[in-house]
Amino acid sequence: MPKLVVRAFAISLDGYSAAPGQTADAPFGKDGLRLMNWFFPTQFFKAMTGQAGEGETGIDNDIVSQSVGNVGATIMGRNMFGPQRGAWPDGSWKGWWGAKPPYHHPVFVLSHHPRKAFDMKGGTSFTFVNDGIESALKQAFAAAKGKDVRIGGGAATVRQYLKAGLIDELDLVQVPILLGQGERIFEGLGGVEEKYECVAFRPSKAVSHLKIVKKA
Amino acid sequence: MPKLVVRAFAISLDGYSAAPGQTADAPFGKDGLRLMNWFFPTQFFKAMTGQAGEGETGIDNDIVSQSVGNVGATIMGRNMFGPQRGAWPDGSWKGWWGAKPPYHHPVFVLSHHPRKAFDMKGGTSFTFVNDGIESALKQAFAAAKGKDVRIGGGAATVRQYLKAGLIDELDLVQVPILLGQGERIFEGLGGVEEKYECVAFRPSKAVSHLKIVKKA
Repeated sequence: MPKLVVRAFAISLDGYSAAPGQTADAPFGKDGLRLMNWFFPTQFFKAMTGQAGEGETGIDNDIVSQSVGNVGATIMGRNMFGPQRGAWPDGSWKGWWGAKPPYHHPVFVLSHHPRKAFDMKGGTSFTFVNDGIESALKQAFAAAKGKDVRIGGGAATVRQYLKAGLIDELDLVQVPILLGQGERIFEGLGGVEEKYECVAFRPSKAVSHLKIVKKA
Repeated sequence: MPKLVVRAFAISLDGYSAAPGQTADAPFGKDGLRLMNWFFPTQFFKAMTGQAGEGETGIDNDIVSQSVGNVGATIMGRNMFGPQRGAWPDGSWKGWWGAKPPYHHPVFVLSHHPRKAFDMKGGTSFTFVNDGIESALKQAFAAAKGKDVRIGGGAATVRQYLKAGLIDELDLVQVPILLGQGERIFEGLGGVEEKYECVAFRPSKAVSHLKIVKKA
């Protein structure tokens, strides 16, 4: 059975996955990009950025390498797609990732504001879903053709799917930095402890990797 | 200079240091005692409970052993002292720790309700402070005679001192369990990231130990 998964999702020691102040130059908000400092040295990231063979192996690299395996579609919130708010001014913003985004499969963006779907190079397409998280999930599973669906983020999107009990596996990366404020997954989720449990703890030298799954 | 410190303070992966439903039999709330499962196997805990020489060594044992070093007084919130709420019904409750509490120094309990101080075996005394966190701090430093003052907990007490910028070192233990709800330190602390930073990350096989200090 294909699953709904969250992979390699980074949160600060105080639980935030983005800081306030998101702009086109600061996708994680002010000083928030530090959340990804464990990721940049990995062989996986180096290969993504044209330095194949460079970079570190080990637990962090294993986790990010596995994060893309068997994923056939991605769902993301609107703020993960771009820094705009409200109605789309035009079709010029095509995501943070340049002409060839690293997804290589259909991506479904949750938004209250309609916009036409479009294709990018490398097999990535962006489709905007205006009628809720269950609709996005249904479209994503259909597009994934038997593979898993991954929720890319951000925190509010993960939280909504977690609250609805729709997520099968949630892989967190606890990063030892203090953000102080921002968006977090674990907010108003009383009762989640009845449905989910942490089944694996794998620290690297930089961060802690946690696997949270639905209880059997 | 003596410091105000928090040592070996456990929080769940979603940031809670106690679950709801505290009772005389459940000091950490319903299912909350799991927060301390990393602690019970240590040589330090075994020695506390009459099994000297038994138990595990390693990072967890090092951290708890160091947690009591150079501490001359403890401050705690009222819920860490007992499960009662409101005015003290009588003087019969003397803490969770039996006739000989493991502090062996003066302990200051924050409470809105007056109660007479009393002494226990082994050098521990309990004094009830009704006029605020700064008063408790002043009394504790005087009683500590040049040693550090430790905040024992709970979350609300640590949060108040952290918000006021009074804590010098905060050693957290991130435990890979989901509590879902309860009390947390990091709530409404926007701006704390300007004053504090995490300077050490030391995972054991069970938990992550983090050291947070005031920025220089």
